[in-house]
Amino acid sequence: MEARVSIIGLGVKDLRSANKFYEECFGWEKLPSSNDNISFFQLNGCLLSLYPVDKLAEDAGISAQGSGFKGFSLAFNTRSKAEVDDIIEDLNSKGVEIVKWPEEVFWGGYSSYIADMDGHLWEIAYNPFMKIDANGNVSTDV
Amino acid sequence: MEARVSIIGLGVKDLRSANKFYEECFGWEKLPSSNDNISFFQLNGCLLSLYPVDKLAEDAGISAQGSGFKGFSLAFNTRSKAEVDDIIEDLNSKGVEIVKWPEEVFWGGYSSYIADMDGHLWEIAYNPFMKIDANGNVSTDV
Repeated sequence: MEARVSIIGLGVKDLRSANKFYEECFGWEKLPSSNDNISFFQLNGCLLSLYPVDKLAEDAGISAQGSGFKGFSLAFNTRSKAEVDDIIEDLNSKGVEIVKWPEEVFWGGYSSYIADMDGHLWEIAYNPFMKIDANGNVSTDV
Repeated sequence: MEARVSIIGLGVKDLRSANKFYEECFGWEKLPSSNDNISFFQLNGCLLSLYPVDKLAEDAGISAQGSGFKGFSLAFNTRSKAEVDDIIEDLNSKGVEIVKWPEEVFWGGYSSYIADMDGHLWEIAYNPFMKIDANGNVSTDV
């Protein structure tokens, strides 16, 4: 298996609300391939999809029951500390739940967390040990 | 915010077992930036990180308690149906939990699901409506 990911699929309670969150709060644009049942957003190399959580479980043939911590997070690395503050301020002004306000962290970065409409965690962080290229791709060889 | 993701962070119960899964079952190579506390794998544009689930929750300042469906999945798209079968056969022979064996699905693809050591779902699928370039990057404009 090549080391790659094609789609990050987030299960959502209400697709319209989830769309609104990613479109209005993050400012991302749905792909034309999106429809009333599923939404796609083009990220750097992979896609983000939003899909009703019960349908996602059904697709895998498992129970949709689940509660508490989902056990994962997605990170959006910034190019500076100031960019973390700017993004968090902007998201806060749009009513987004700020799970953790930006702070210096033990590993040498500057990190914060927000939650989307379904409690999926996004870490917004500046990591001086990672490189971000012009296309937004990340690597650890700084 | 640019439409991009930097890190897909999976919370794991036991980092060694999780490393072994991604190294031996998926055949992926840990980055040298990995250490005893966290592992990184370079994917197409973003990183996969493995981090103890309790530390991940602590990092976000929330409770690590959670059970049942995690409400998300990651997809690995193949370049053919045969590649889905080959990967699933290989993973099955390595003792990986096959959550759903490959089958034709309503949206026109050929899809299967497996679970890693911590129940994180990976969909292994052939999707004729998506394009995969030479670098493994995916888009919906076929």
